[in-house]
This record gives sequence, C-alpha cells and structure tokens, in this order.
Amino acid sequence: MPEIKFVPDNVVTQAEQGENLLEVMVSAGVYIHAGCGGAGVCGKCQVVVAAGEVTTQALKKAAKDKVKPGHTLACQTFIGATDVTVEIPDDSRIRKMASSEGEPVVKGQRITRQQVESFMLSEDPQPPVKKYAVQLTEPTVEDNTSDLQRLTNALRTEHGADVRDVDFHVLPVLPALLREANWQATATVANGWESCPDHLVRVQPGDSASPNLALAVDVGTTSVWVALVDTASREVLAEASDYNQQISFGEDVISRIIFSAKGDGLADIQKAVAGSINKLTQDVLDKAGAPRDAVSFIAAAGNTTMTQLLLGIDARNIRLSPYIPAANVFPPVEAVQAGLDMPRGVMLYAFPCVASYVGGDIVSGIAAYGLHKRPEMTLYMDIGTNGEIVVGNSDFMMCASCSAGPAFEGGGLEFGMRATIGAVEGFALNPDNLDEPMILTIGRTKPIGICGSGIITLLAELMQFGVLQQNGKFNQDAPTKRVRQGEGGKLEYVVVWKDDAGVDSDIVLSEPDIDNLIRAKGAMYSGAHTLVEHVGLTMDMIERVVITGSFGNYVNLAKAVFIGLLPDLPADKFFYMRNGSLAGARLACVDRAFLRTAEEVSRMMTHVELSEAPAYMDKYMAAQFLPHTDASLFPNVMKILQK
Amino acid sequence: MPEIKFVPDNVVTQAEQGENLLEVMVSAGVYIHAGCGGAGVCGKCQVVVAAGEVTTQALKKAAKDKVKPGHTLACQTFIGATDVTVEIPDDSRIRKMASSEGEPVVKGQRITRQQVESFMLSEDPQPPVKKYAVQLTEPTVEDNTSDLQRLTNALRTEHGADVRDVDFHVLPVLPALLREANWQATATVANGWESCPDHLVRVQPGDSASPNLALAVDVGTTSVWVALVDTASREVLAEASDYNQQISFGEDVISRIIFSAKGDGLADIQKAVAGSINKLTQDVLDKAGAPRDAVSFIAAAGNTTMTQLLLGIDARNIRLSPYIPAANVFPPVEAVQAGLDMPRGVMLYAFPCVASYVGGDIVSGIAAYGLHKRPEMTLYMDIGTNGEIVVGNSDFMMCASCSAGPAFEGGGLEFGMRATIGAVEGFALNPDNLDEPMILTIGRTKPIGICGSGIITLLAELMQFGVLQQNGKFNQDAPTKRVRQGEGGKLEYVVVWKDDAGVDSDIVLSEPDIDNLIRAKGAMYSGAHTLVEHVGLTMDMIERVVITGSFGNYVNLAKAVFIGLLPDLPADKFFYMRNGSLAGARLACVDRAFLRTAEEVSRMMTHVELSEAPAYMDKYMAAQFLPHTDASLFPNVMKILQK
Repeated sequence: MPEIKFVPDNVVTQAEQGENLLEVMVSAGVYIHAGCGGAGVCGKCQVVVAAGEVTTQALKKAAKDKVKPGHTLACQTFIGATDVTVEIPDDSRIRKMASSEGEPVVKGQRITRQQVESFMLSEDPQPPVKKYAVQLTEPTVEDNTSDLQRLTNALRTEHGADVRDVDFHVLPVLPALLREANWQATATVANGWESCPDHLVRVQPGDSASPNLALAVDVGTTSVWVALVDTASREVLAEASDYNQQISFGEDVISRIIFSAKGDGLADIQKAVAGSINKLTQDVLDKAGAPRDAVSFIAAAGNTTMTQLLLGIDARNIRLSPYIPAANVFPPVEAVQAGLDMPRGVMLYAFPCVASYVGGDIVSGIAAYGLHKRPEMTLYMDIGTNGEIVVGNSDFMMCASCSAGPAFEGGGLEFGMRATIGAVEGFALNPDNLDEPMILTIGRTKPIGICGSGIITLLAELMQFGVLQQNGKFNQDAPTKRVRQGEGGKLEYVVVWKDDAGVDSDIVLSEPDIDNLIRAKGAMYSGAHTLVEHVGLTMDMIERVVITGSFGNYVNLAKAVFIGLLPDLPADKFFYMRNGSLAGARLACVDRAFLRTAEEVSRMMTHVELSEAPAYMDKYMAAQFLPHTDASLFPNVMKILQK
Repeated sequence: MPEIKFVPDNVVTQAEQGENLLEVMVSAGVYIHAGCGGAGVCGKCQVVVAAGEVTTQALKKAAKDKVKPGHTLACQTFIGATDVTVEIPDDSRIRKMASSEGEPVVKGQRITRQQVESFMLSEDPQPPVKKYAVQLTEPTVEDNTSDLQRLTNALRTEHGADVRDVDFHVLPVLPALLREANWQATATVANGWESCPDHLVRVQPGDSASPNLALAVDVGTTSVWVALVDTASREVLAEASDYNQQISFGEDVISRIIFSAKGDGLADIQKAVAGSINKLTQDVLDKAGAPRDAVSFIAAAGNTTMTQLLLGIDARNIRLSPYIPAANVFPPVEAVQAGLDMPRGVMLYAFPCVASYVGGDIVSGIAAYGLHKRPEMTLYMDIGTNGEIVVGNSDFMMCASCSAGPAFEGGGLEFGMRATIGAVEGFALNPDNLDEPMILTIGRTKPIGICGSGIITLLAELMQFGVLQQNGKFNQDAPTKRVRQGEGGKLEYVVVWKDDAGVDSDIVLSEPDIDNLIRAKGAMYSGAHTLVEHVGLTMDMIERVVITGSFGNYVNLAKAVFIGLLPDLPADKFFYMRNGSLAGARLACVDRAFLRTAEEVSRMMTHVELSEAPAYMDKYMAAQFLPHTDASLFPNVMKILQK
C-alpha cells in the first residue's frame, strides 16, 4: 500500500490506491481548509504533490483562477500506485489541532482488505460455490446414459468435480434445459460444508460460468451492507448499504423479537430484512452492470437475532432467560427460502453464532481479522447498535455484548444518519474562530446529517475547545454563536447553518443527543473494561485494540479515545478494520476454508454474560462522563483537556 | 416354513404360517370342490388334517350339518407352525387335472418374504431413517448451548448418532417445539445415502420413536401397491393396492408421457399417482391402526416413467429416440415434494433405474431376489404392463423390457380386474362336466371379475380341455353351454353366470380378450427368448426361472407355461416371487445397506434394446399362438395337448 507523507507536519499514513487525498488527510488528522465540503469549487484545499504518482481531476470553472501554479486541490486528487509526499502550503493550513500538537493521542492503523486477505486467505482459496461450463456430447442409442449422469460425468472428466449429491430441484427441468441449450450448460457445485462432498445445486443453460459472483452481506440491526464479490478475482465489484427495513418494527433487537413473536410478526420481520437485502442486491448489480443470474452464493453475517429473523427462525428465546438461541451453526439453506430474490440453488450461508447476544457478525469479524491466529493480547470491539467485545488471542477468546443503541449508526439522534452521501464525517474547529468549523461530508456534497464517525469527531472537538463540558452539557459561555437554546429550551450546537445545509433547517446536535451518545460510548467502554478485568488483565496489558463497526471509510480513533469510547492507550496499539462483519462475509464468498475457520472461531469463543458480571453496572455508571469519571483511566486525554 | 403334504395325491408344497389351506391347495394345483368360492358356506371343500398343527375357524351355520365328523373345511383352515399332512376325501375331490396326472409340467417354488430377507438382509440391518427419543436437560444460564446443539449432543451421547447435517426446515419451529414438549422430543435421522453421514430430517414433540414405520411402494403402470412396514420388527403391518389413478390418462407409459408433455399434464399426472399412494397409505394406516405421524420413510420402486412422473420430472425424452431418462439415480427428496400427504422430513427414496425402459421396479426385484449374488444362470421375468426381463447371474446381468400391455393386471379385458377381493384367481374345469368349473375368488366372495393369475389358469384350462383352440379361437363344438356368441357376434366363454356373480351380468372372456392376452404373453415370452439368445444361451441352459409381477398371492406357473407365457422347462427350475418390486422396496425400508445394493445392481445391469434386436419381431410373431407356433419349444405342453 502506498505510504503518504505530509510535510512539513511529518505525518505518515497509508492509503489505498485510488483513494481521495482530502479523505486521506482527514483520516490522518491533517486538516486543511475545505470550505465547500470537498466539492472542488472553493479552491481552498490546495496542496503540492512533491513526490509520487497521483491522478488529478480537471479543475472546475469556479476553482480555476484560485489554484496557484504547481498546486493542486486535495479534494480532486487521487492516490496512485506509489508512495506520495504532499506539501501543505501555509495558506491551506488550519492551525494545527490540539490532537496533533506534540504527541497525537492516537491515529490508528487501518487494516485494509488486502491485509485481511493476505493474513487469512487459505493457500489455494476456492469459493464455496463453483460454476463449471460443460459441453456435453449429444446422447445416442449407443451412448444413452441419463441426462444427470451425462452432466456429472462431464463435470468429473472436464473439471475434476466429483459430484455425488444432487439437490433434487435441479432434476425436473434438466432434460428440457439441456436440449434447449444444445447440451451446453453451466453447473453450480457447492462444496463449503463439512460433511458433504461436491453437491450439484443448480444448472443453467449455456456457458455462464463466468463471472461467478457472490454477495457478502452484513445484516446489522440498524444497517445492512451488501458487497458484490467476484469469486475468481476476489474483487469487490460494488458495495451498497441502507437501513435495515426492520427498523420500522423497533430500533433494537429486543423490540424486534417482541414484534416477531406476535401473529405474523416473524414472517413480516423476515420479509423486511429480505426486502433490504433485495434492494441492495439490485443496487450492487446495477452499479457493477452484472446480471442477477451470475450470483451463486450469499454469505450473511449478523448478530444472533438478525440471523434467526433473516432465516425465519423463532427468536423468542433469545430474549427470555436463560437466553437460548435456536442454533449456533446454521444448516445450508437456499436463499429463496429466506425470501431473497434469487433463483433456486443459490445458497445462503449464515455465519455461526456463539450465544444469543454474540452472533455471526462478531464471529465473521474475528475470523477475518484472524484474532484466533495472533499471539498479541487483543481487545476487539465491534461498535454498533449491539456492541460486541472480544478479548483474547490464539490461546483463548472471551466475548461479551452490550446494547449500545443505534447512536453510532446515526440512530436516535435528531440529525443522525448512516455513513452515506451527505453525512458529516469530518469536523474540525478552527481555534482562531470557533464559529468557522471545517466540515467534510461523505460524497463531498452539502451536509444533510451526521454519521457515527462524524459524531465522534464532533463530540471530541467540542470537548477539546471547551464548547462541551465533561458532563455532556454545553458551555454557554463558549465564544461561539453556535450554542443556543433550541425548541423546548434544550441547549444545542448548530453544526451546519441552514444556508450551508442540504436540508431545509439548521443541522444541530442537542444535549439529549449527547446523552444518547454518552450512554452508547459508556456501554461500549465499560463492556470492554469489564471483560478485560474478567479475564484477569488490566487495560495496559492489552497489546492491540481493533475497532470495527458499521462506520464509513474511517473512524478517527484519537477522537474516539478522547470521548472515552476507546481506552487511552498508545497510538500504535490501535487498528481500525472497516466493517469486520462484512470483511468476513467477503472472505466466505471466495474461500470455502473460511467457512470452517468461522465455525472453529465460534467454538473457540467463550461467552461472558455482562449482565451477570457484578462489576459491569458500576463501570457503566462511571463511564457516563466525558471521557470518564475516573480520570486516571484517561491520562493522555486529561493532559490535553487540562491545557 | 411348514411343508404341506397332500395325500393320496402325494403333492408336497411349502406354505407360510397363517396361510389359508384352500389357497395353498389352489396354489399347489390340488383341486377340490369349492362351490361358494371359499366363503365357508357350501361345506364342499372338506379335508382331513392327518398330522400337524392348523387352526380352524368356527363353522358357519349354513355349513354345520354338512361337515362330517373329523373333517374340516379347507377354506376355514389355516396353517400352523409345523408341517401338515392333509388327506383329501374322495367326496371333495375334483377328478385330477391333466396337469397333475403323471408328471406335472411345473408347480413352482414360492420365494417367501422370509427367504428374501435371509438371503439379502445385511448382517446388522438398520433402517435408512431412524427415530430417536431424547429427554433434554432444560437449559440454564450456565448450560446455555443452542437448542439445536442440545438436541444433537443428546443424540450423540444417548444414541451414538453423529448428526452433522441438519435439514434446514427443522430449525424454524424447533425452539417452540422443544419447550412445548418439556424438552422431550423425537428426532428422525436419515442415513441411507452414500456421501452424507447422519442427517437430521425431522423433530417431533414427545417420545414417538416407536413405532418407526415406513411405506414400501410399488408404483406400477396399472397398479400401485403399498406395504406398511415396521422398521424394527421388519414385519409388514398392512398391505393395500389399487389402480394407479394415472390410468385415466392412458393405459401404458407412452400415453402417460404424451399426456404429461401437454400444458399442466406433468403436474396433473404427478397428482394422480400421488393420489393413489395417498389413498393406499390411508388404507394401510387404517388397517394397522397406526398414526400417519409414525411413518418416517417411503421407498418407491417403479419403472423409469413411473418414477419420473411421481417425482414430477420431465419424462418426454423417455419416449423419443435415443430414449434418455433424466436420471438413473435419484437424489433424496421429501415425500411432500412429490405431492404425498406426509409431514416435512419424511424422505422419499426412489429406486435407481437402468435405462428408460428398465426401471427401479426391476432393479428392486433383482436386488431383493439377490440375482447379483447367485451363481445360477437365471431368467428373471417381471410380468406387468411393462414387462422386464433379466438374464444373468453374479457375473453379469443383461436386461430388456417389452410392452406387454395391462392384460395380466386385468387391464384391457372386458371383465379383467386387479388381484383384489372378488377376482377369480383359481379356475378348474371338471372333466366330467365342462359346465361345472370350480372357481375360487380372492377374499372368497362372489366373483366380480378375473385377475391376472386367474386369466392364466382360465386360458390354460380352456385350452387343455379343448374349449379353446391353439389359435385363440373358441371351439364351438366343445361340450359346454358356456361358449356362446356375445354382442356383435364375437364368441365368448361364460366364466360365471350372472346368478352366481357379484355383478349384474354374466362374467365372460371373449375372443378379443384372448387376442389381448396372446399378444401380452407373446411379448413376454419372445422378449425372454430374444434376450437369452442375445447373451449366447439357449433356453435349456437356464438354471432358474424367477417369475414376479403385480399378481396376487400366487400364480400357477404350470398354467403359465401351458399358454406359452413361460418357457417349457422342468418344474424345479421355476420360482415365484410375489411382487419383486415391492419386496425390494420393503427391504429398502428396513436395511439401509440395501439402498447401496440397489445402486450397485442398477450399475451392473446392461440394457439391451429389444426393438433394435432384429430377431425380436420374428419371435414375437411366432409367439402369437397357444403355446407357440414352434411346437418344439414346448414339448411337454404338446404332449399333454396331444392326449
């Protein structure tokens, strides 16, 4: 991966080829002016590419006269194949942030898709479902073996696929299909499940063996992500996400389960999530210009409730003591049986779960990160509506879950939104003028709301500059017009004035919103803290902290530490893996060995019920503060705050 | 098996315990007066049991005064556990038939169910689908494994069943089922198929592991037979048969295929046969007083067309050159998918086929007889609407099929009927008075028609006494009033006068009926003859002839030789196996090893296309005579005829 060096700041970070330079800078905590949110019209984010390959988009009319010779706009520049050195001219520079004065609290290393694959892919990765094109010889009176035998013989001799099991539904239409296709056909063969050998699940007319596509699905309580994967090249062809339509039946898993237990609730709630996946599937197929027929496999990772509801399995006992899931390892099922809009024979694989509140999403993420293969004592946190935490290494893994609520996915906040176009994801206060913050949106459009990573940064910045107090209340004396009384007398902070917004109102963050956020971050932190102590460790014995979640491209880990969401540990211990659950689902699409890995991981993990741990409630209460009531837990944050 | 000896005739035969003595006598060719058809009222069939155990029903009022002291009525007597010697008083005796004067042409040994089982059952026979009752421990917070895992753990520890695969449909309802049943449940585990280990297919509440019943089904073109089998004791609890409802769409496989290819024909024709099986299933369950829920497995043997139509598989290519079946080995499928009225998880196993016209019925019969394990060069003939013939032994097996038509199943004849209550199955002419034949019906009721075995005997008797000529025409000069001109001037023979019949007319056999029968027997014989010569043998090199078919309890093989249906070979070469197809299906229900055996048999068999064998047509034409135009092929029959 190209290394990007910023001078004179001397900040070094890694970026993926094709990544937008302004995003890389925001991600690395190198702030410059970016007045238009990245739209390429204000001409402020000028940089000089001193070394390395980049590609630059043609300047827009509005910016042409503003850009100096030799300068380029960061928001219009994309990383090439080589390392890059970027000079930041003084004119572009926002006065350095507190977080980058002296030693930054943490920047965090990103764990890229390539890194995941190079660590976790098996030696000869084969997708769990393969497609083989065969040209059969036409039968004669002398060569009169059955249609099915002719097909399996060809699969054996031409492709070495030893098909011994056949899904019955293939057979009724096989004779007509083969003859209408002049004996050319494509067979889909599944071989990802433990006990059965090559298994014929589908036959299509003609040669449609390539592309052999799969869908990786992260079924979150709040958001659903779908990635379209080419199983041969292992490339992600397109990705899309949206709210889980089940939201209309309740924000958290408990309310979903209650809904599912009434009347046709289970069928309705299954239909809702299937609807989300169906819509996103259409989106990714459209984006990639790929036909639906090319999809042969779906790997879905979700928490236990999400998994059971997707599969239409009675989930009531997840919510009733002693909290028993129907299954931890799910048998293979055709996607169409879960209401997914797929032809017969497209198999749906659901990641194994550990317990009622530690599900396939965390198993998927842990297996993708390869925690079970690593010697370092690691704290793995999946931040979502249901937060999951794992402490362990290749020797053992303990896991727990906590209900954080949907705040970090934009739920339950007045202007919260998912990490999608128009969401504020970067935010920096200008110390010279608190009324002029820098705002960066996803898609570089006018802001319409605030996503999880934006909220973390926003909270931290407001805290750091004294606009927000440690108790979560606004400082009415702060030198900014943006703190005001909103409707009902509650204090709020205007993040974006109506004139600059893509919506017809000011975009604000209110004290009740902040209360929500403090509860969410407090649940996550105290869960991690409790689990670390439960295994007999202290936070400083943790060698790595891996953060993942249904965030967008990045999360500013320094800011997350600052608000007390993450423990205050040295920067080099932090790693960010974008959507670990989806990362595992992607691996499952391309490497059948990973299915076994996931099952092993699910068996290795020992579940700790936080609600049964007496320390948890105290720790949760103590964490209802920014960053924490126990300042000794956040020494570096306190140092900055005390300045 | 008890040996039954008849004196002074000195005829010895074997019988099953519980078998009716009159039936044994008819079967052995020992005729006595039986005026009421076996109803126990005429008092004519008196015998003396000289030695051995029998049980006798109380005499009916009408017969009480007629039975002499020390005598008993054969029709009311049943064989016990020991050998029996039966004396036939002169009063009871019909003058001995030609066939039993001097050396009988052939009597035939019956191959009993017990013999089949002792030869073919594996050492430790286990049914392909087992039921296990388990009492699970109730989960607690400490013991919080998933419902499915709890169940599979119990199956492993309590029953040693290593369930690694689970049919998905089990899961959605599992949580509620286990709790409502207080954690007592019965799991059905399938393990009959090659590549997969123990496979959980069904869970029922409570302990319903016993009885574990299965249905053996013979899906004939004309008749469907269903036997209800207890997989533990291997006993047949009940048996029933009826016409295949598909008959309304055509009498032979060709017309069925043509129907199935039009519009919704395939669905309609599948529904028809499923309807037959459903009705018969209800019949056998009623007879045995067994609940439908106790059935866990269905083994169906049928010819290739019947199998494909039952499974809803496009069958058009069976009829079009080069006559290709969709599959020879069928994947497992749930019975409910074939339209059978069974709960989910009841598996339907269809016997493997060899070719489009050599199907699972013959494979089932051959495997049940164990031809593939026997050294004797054997001619195996399955006589049905589609006749199948196998020549071979443990070294090789060649097979062929011929379309005999439904005559031997009672089809296509004015008064033909299936081998069921009221069908004439025994017929003997009294040489002293040709107008007073002895008639024996199935169920010993008033005759309502004539079944296949009855027709064979009838033809032979009429021939033997000169009532019917070798060309299939009646002898108008025969000393009987029973030959007459029927409607349209065709000659016919009155088998039963209206007064004695259970129907409102005379029961007759007409010359067109006889033409049908001659075509059918000619097709079977010439098929066998062609196949024997095709493998380089002559008829006299055949060491065993095994006859089976959808007949009733017996077929008089001597009579079948007499009309030229079977080759004229020494008596001790002949064996009769009642419904070989059903016999194999029964074995499949109780011994999973038999499923593999059947597949091996299907692979061992080499198919010969009779229509491609130039000799067949000539042989067929030559066989359109009673017994045959080439008298040298039937020397023993000719000797009797010439008397």
